[in-house]
Amino acid sequence: MERLNVAIIGATGLVGTKIVEILANTTIEIENIYFFSSFVDAGQKIEFRNKTYYSKEASKKRLQKLDLDVVFLAAGGDVSYHYAEFLINRGIYVIDNSSYFRMKNHSLLIIPEVNGELLTKKNYLISNPNCSTIQSLLPIKAIADCVDIEKIIYSTYQAVSGSGVNGIKSLEGELSHYKYPIKNNLIPQIDTFIDDDYTKEEVKMINETKKILNNFLLDISATCVRVPISNCHAVDITLELKRNVSVEKIKKLLNKFEGIKVVDDPSEEMYPMPIIADEQDDVLVGRIRKSYVFDNGVRLFVVADNLRKGAALNAVQILEKMVERGIFNV
Amino acid sequence: MERLNVAIIGATGLVGTKIVEILANTTIEIENIYFFSSFVDAGQKIEFRNKTYYSKEASKKRLQKLDLDVVFLAAGGDVSYHYAEFLINRGIYVIDNSSYFRMKNHSLLIIPEVNGELLTKKNYLISNPNCSTIQSLLPIKAIADCVDIEKIIYSTYQAVSGSGVNGIKSLEGELSHYKYPIKNNLIPQIDTFIDDDYTKEEVKMINETKKILNNFLLDISATCVRVPISNCHAVDITLELKRNVSVEKIKKLLNKFEGIKVVDDPSEEMYPMPIIADEQDDVLVGRIRKSYVFDNGVRLFVVADNLRKGAALNAVQILEKMVERGIFNV
Repeated sequence: MERLNVAIIGATGLVGTKIVEILANTTIEIENIYFFSSFVDAGQKIEFRNKTYYSKEASKKRLQKLDLDVVFLAAGGDVSYHYAEFLINRGIYVIDNSSYFRMKNHSLLIIPEVNGELLTKKNYLISNPNCSTIQSLLPIKAIADCVDIEKIIYSTYQAVSGSGVNGIKSLEGELSHYKYPIKNNLIPQIDTFIDDDYTKEEVKMINETKKILNNFLLDISATCVRVPISNCHAVDITLELKRNVSVEKIKKLLNKFEGIKVVDDPSEEMYPMPIIADEQDDVLVGRIRKSYVFDNGVRLFVVADNLRKGAALNAVQILEKMVERGIFNV
Repeated sequence: MERLNVAIIGATGLVGTKIVEILANTTIEIENIYFFSSFVDAGQKIEFRNKTYYSKEASKKRLQKLDLDVVFLAAGGDVSYHYAEFLINRGIYVIDNSSYFRMKNHSLLIIPEVNGELLTKKNYLISNPNCSTIQSLLPIKAIADCVDIEKIIYSTYQAVSGSGVNGIKSLEGELSHYKYPIKNNLIPQIDTFIDDDYTKEEVKMINETKKILNNFLLDISATCVRVPISNCHAVDITLELKRNVSVEKIKKLLNKFEGIKVVDDPSEEMYPMPIIADEQDDVLVGRIRKSYVFDNGVRLFVVADNLRKGAALNAVQILEKMVERGIFNV
């Protein structure tokens, strides 16, 4: 396998910084790495595998001069729109953290443990799913591999880090990124309102779940709520299953699924919480019990570090899976 | 109508203090009022309708000497257990804020706007429902009056004031009332674990909803989560209805129901939030939309001041309704 030439656009942001940190700790062999940011953050010092780099302002002119294999885009939808086609047209693989291309037919939407087998040499554009979707899909896929799922009801509890540095500053009272204060408050709106008075974040969860499970007949609904915690999202999930599967069996399915850690011991008052998910790679699943509302129903409470598995870690894992599948082999 | 002789046991607690404040501002005519607390809080100064009182330590001996019409119990389940039967056996009406008697056959479970018509001279023991249940039941009853409800799915976002003064102090970092830190955290456990790995709080919501709607065939499930905000609970509710009712019609039903304020304007990014529900009497209902998961489904986000409508206000409204229904007329 050749050593990779990698660029990160948005390398100084909240997700970009995590990509740099996580990528450095993988075994992926890297020949050259380039860090790009906005004009404002240009010149920022970045340490990577014992070498010091400085971020440069991103531009097509600069990118054009580089011999690149893969680029991470982590600077929001507009920046992804600006660079993605430009890069893939040059035969460069793109792993995009934004929502811009997720539902487009020419983009894969990948969670490596869930549908990593879709990655091929021909797919140049790979989107990282929405943070809440990623952490929900691991347990849902673990169950769906055993029994058909018919309905999914999501209620989210989403940390401010999902809005980037400005979200965290808003919780600390340093600025007002949101329309309303988030300290001592709950904001039942993430992203703008679109169809049927659902928000874009809710529609993302619904549509991305269908695309990743490749099941467009699923009945799914979501309410997404911003809560005043700095990091780690929680999702309360109710599932209706096609046939009865015992809670014990579901726990076993979850336990053996890669990327999931079952934290579920009511007798010890142990369950997933942000304080234990923070900085962890695993998606924590607990409060596993029957739902009462469906004859064959199950309820789960799922917590994960939205900056890691919900964003940067998943993006790096996509690259690892691409390497593993020989996509960069000459 | 005779002027009432009233006592409040737990008058210096978080809910008791609110009962005193709210009761003072009603038109209920009071002859004598007595304030009781624990030994620790005895002697605390209490202002009521321009007179100054001092709390006394509660005891059966002290209560026995008083000529009382009605007593509010707001000092937790143990204290309610200790006094309730003692009082009703003496012909004194009891409005109990604890969960102790709620599901017992000899206790009514009352939300005045929902089932206040059950109050009669013969019912000496009246329980105030669980805070999250009260705020959920107003919109649910508004809808149930028009169309049968078949399934209810609750996910709660509950403020620390629901745990009393110690909850608030824990959020401020002054003490540790909860097993885990609540600042920057979500705790998906309220009260102890009981059947099927549900918590007592979740089972309360399920059972109290059935009792108040007098419908024990309803399919209900709940996940209750403590969130790091000081006051006002939120509940995300999904309902399956027996037949199709348009979202517009549901908004109309909610709008005309006493005690509800519809706050739902996506075009203006207006919806219920703790910062606007705080210190308000009304239950705020918004994010009203179809559920996608059921053919005839609706989804709501409901926020209310859990110390007011979720506790003290509802208790005082029970007394107002009793007065209105002539229960104290000689």
